Parts: sequence; structure tokens; C-alpha cells
Amino acid sequence: MKTIVVSGLGLIGSSIARIMRQADQTVEIIGCDPDDGTAQFLLTKHIIDRRLSFSKAAPMADLIVLAGPVSVIVNQIRELSTMPLKDHVLITDVGSSKVEIMTAAKPLIANQIAFVGGHPMAGSHQSGGQAGRPDLFAGAIYFLVSGSQTNAQLIEFKRLMAPAKVRWLEIGASEHDKLVSEVSHVPHVVATTLVNTIAESLAHNPVGLKAAAGGFKDTTRIAASDPTMWTAIMLSNRDAITEEIDDFKDQLTQLQTAIRNGDEQTIFQTFTKAKKIRESLDN
Amino acid sequence: MKTIVVSGLGLIGSSIARIMRQADQTVEIIGCDPDDGTAQFLLTKHIIDRRLSFSKAAPMADLIVLAGPVSVIVNQIRELSTMPLKDHVLITDVGSSKVEIMTAAKPLIANQIAFVGGHPMAGSHQSGGQAGRPDLFAGAIYFLVSGSQTNAQLIEFKRLMAPAKVRWLEIGASEHDKLVSEVSHVPHVVATTLVNTIAESLAHNPVGLKAAAGGFKDTTRIAASDPTMWTAIMLSNRDAITEEIDDFKDQLTQLQTAIRNGDEQTIFQTFTKAKKIRESLDN
Repeated sequence: MKTIVVSGLGLIGSSIARIMRQADQTVEIIGCDPDDGTAQFLLTKHIIDRRLSFSKAAPMADLIVLAGPVSVIVNQIRELSTMPLKDHVLITDVGSSKVEIMTAAKPLIANQIAFVGGHPMAGSHQSGGQAGRPDLFAGAIYFLVSGSQTNAQLIEFKRLMAPAKVRWLEIGASEHDKLVSEVSHVPHVVATTLVNTIAESLAHNPVGLKAAAGGFKDTTRIAASDPTMWTAIMLSNRDAITEEIDDFKDQLTQLQTAIRNGDEQTIFQTFTKAKKIRESLDN
Repeated sequence: MKTIVVSGLGLIGSSIARIMRQADQTVEIIGCDPDDGTAQFLLTKHIIDRRLSFSKAAPMADLIVLAGPVSVIVNQIRELSTMPLKDHVLITDVGSSKVEIMTAAKPLIANQIAFVGGHPMAGSHQSGGQAGRPDLFAGAIYFLVSGSQTNAQLIEFKRLMAPAKVRWLEIGASEHDKLVSEVSHVPHVVATTLVNTIAESLAHNPVGLKAAAGGFKDTTRIAASDPTMWTAIMLSNRDAITEEIDDFKDQLTQLQTAIRNGDEQTIFQTFTKAKKIRESLDN
């Protein structure tokens, strides 16, 4: 019987447990998480079979999925390089920035322990193990950053993830971090800033945030995501994010200048360009 | 029989025609729009009874709803002040910035022609008369800026709009313009900028925009809205929008600095604050 250890039973980790349970009824899934309520919920639902501490669970694993915040993943990778593990174990993670994680994994890789970086490009403004679901990643890209895994191990991992219906994509760690800063991290920063800017100036307005229509709600939805997880993401991808914010501010200032000057042509062209690109995302 | 003239049969205007048709089967609705296809569609669906030019239709009206782009509304208000109109006619508009429109309406008001400014705080990334629907504004705020209307005229207008199930809210023109710059116009600018910033840096990346997950799509959805309408909105509310963008940039730079410095506490507090506010919008 195959033993899978999922460490971190939040939205992502618990969804992966659900997916692997669907893929193969014979696997044993051990869950590790400091939160009693979540663990108990997942045990009751038979999504995990047992709950153990990470140090007890890891040596028993054929597959280890690190699904905590990035800072926890990095610490656990360091722990793993000094722990007695099964010879053929595959270790992977779901962290949303990969340079820091692949750097932390160097000792593992040097010791010929199989590691492959992973990152499913999905998520939700919800969080927690209760909110997980097997179709959370359906249609989304799942990045893989090659480390020391064998082909056979990767095929087995993909088999266990098959019910997720992701689109697998291999990518380099730096390229990954720039890309996700653009499509995920900076949008998060921007949505957060939009909410906070408005909160301040509406504090004394009785109409307040009630006037916010559907467009505003869509634009700021991700600002309701888990602050702990997103703080860890920001800290782990600082360089790419701060550079990308600079680019964003440059473009924003250009559009602001056009608005201030009443430059109809530039405003129209800017909106038209964005409309075309945004529409292409839905195809 | 009451005659209603709706000028501009796009998303908003055609939805208002649908709403008033539902409210009162006895009204005659005359539509004005340069687009043959839309007018024909609405005639076929019996949403409008006739299509006429604005200058022919306006003198026949008991109620005139100006539902074109803001620049067209302003021109039509000027035209109306020199046209022969029914004594008891009420003129209203749906423009999303009110200072410019209330200023344009001064000659009408001086001539004791009834005018009340209006703005339904809804909309959609869709556009066009085919996309209109009677529940487009359901639950949304409908701003009213008092001009020269009588109480009886306002009551009659609200009766005809009853099926829309809006929340009526009276507001001053300047206060309105600041408020909508915050909850609507600047979010539009920000979503547009986000799409365009990323488009540029992903131009040479084969993974490209395909990696964009649900969060990015939500955040940028409004960037797919009609560029003509939004250009007119930007031009009509320049001062409030450019000031609000300045505030937004200040806040963005503060968060960027915290990320650059790895200031975990500030990042966490910023995300936590936004999460609380954003969650309050859904209550």
C-alpha cells in the first residue's frame, strides 16, 4: 500500500488529498496540520486516514506533498534533508514561488532524494480544509519545476493527480516567479490597495461601500483571501513583485496623464488594447 | 397615453425600456439610436414601439431618458433647452458623472423645464441593446441628483422604474463624482492597467496569458467593457479620477516598500485590513 503524506491541510492541501483519494482508493493518506478542527473534519470525511506530526509521518511516506505556506515549506524541506526517508520517496510542494524553494531543496537534491517543485495556478478567495474540493484546479495550469525526480516518479504523481484535470507545464524557477508575480501576486497587491484606498476616503461617507457595484466586487474579490498565506507569498517573491509593481505604476501614470490632459485618443487606445487582451483570456 | 423617449439603446437604455414596459403596458416607448441593428432588434421584441430621430421624438415626450455616452447626453441637454417640449415633461439621464451634466442642465432648469440627474450603479462587461435586461440594476443603488423636478414627477418616474428593484439614493453632484471615481472609475483604470502591463511583459512568453487563473480573471473582468463608453466617462470626471489615482499610487508605493523591505507585519496588516473591508461588501 502506498502512503501519501500531505502536510498543510488548507484549501490546496485538502483538495490534493481529495484528488488522490479519488484517483486511488488503495492509498493511505496521512495528514499533518496544527489545526485540530480541520484535521478532525477531514478524518470524519475519510479524506485523510490518519493525522500525525510531520516528523513522524515523513519517514513512512512514498510521496510527500508540502502544502503549507511558503515559509513552512522551506523549513520542512530543510528538515527533510536530515530525516530518515524511504529510498524511493518523491517530495513535492505547492508553493507559489519557486526560486526560494528550489534553492532550499538543493541539499535534498544533492543527497539524491527525489524532489520536484510544483505549483497549481488556482485557488480561491476562500481558505481552509473545509473549502477544499477535488475540482479546485480543473482546467488550470499546474507548474512543475524539475529537480531530482525520475520519470517514473513523475508519471506516478501525475496518475495520482489525474482527477484534478490540470494542464501540466514544466517551467524554470525564475521564469515561473516572474510569470506568477504578473498574473497572481501583483494583481493581489493591486486589489488590496484598491480596497484600502477607498476605505480611507469613504470612512466619513454614509453611502460608503454600499455603492460598490458588481465591477468593483469582481476587481477586489481576491483581496478577501487569507492574509497569512499571501504575506508568505509576498516575502518569498519580493524581487519579482517589486519590479512588476514599478512597471504597473509606470503604465498607470501614463493613463493618468492622458486622463488629466483629456487625451481622448490615448485613453481610447489604452482601453481598446486591454479589452482585446482580456477577451482573449476567455477563449 | 404616456409617451416615453429613450435616447441611446445600449445596455442601460434598453434595460430601462424593458423595465418601463414591464411597469406599465399602456406607455408608448420611442427609441432613438444611430445603430440600425439594435433598434430593429428592440422593435421586433416589442421593447420599443417606434424609432425616431431625437429631434422628432423629444417634443412628443412626457418623459425623456438620456442614456447615451456622457458627451452625447451633454449635447442633447443643450439641444433640449432650445426645443419645443411638452409643459410637464420630465428629463433625466443615466450618465455616470454628474457635475458636468448638472452644469449643462442649468439652462433647462432656468427655463423651468423639469430635470433630475440619475445614475444607476450597475452595468456589466457586456454592452449593447441585445444584452439589456429588466433585472440589470436589481439591488443596486440608483443615484438621483435633484434639479428642477417636482415631487409628483419623481414619484411617477420611480413608479415606472419599480420593476428594476433599485435602491434610490439622493446625492449632491460633486459628492457623487468623487464616490463613483472611487468605486467605479479608478477600479476600471486599475484593471485596464493590470492587463496592459502584463500584456507587454508576456509578449515573448509562450505560456503567456494562459497561466492566468480565476483571481486574475476576476480582477481584470471590467477591462473588457466598452472602450467608447469608458473613454467618455474618463473625460467627464477627470479631476476626481486623477486625484483618486494619486491616492491609489501613494498606497501602492507604501505596500511595495513593505514588500521590498520584507516588512512582514506591515504586509500582513495591509492584507488583513483589506480582507475585512472586502468581506463586508458581501454582507
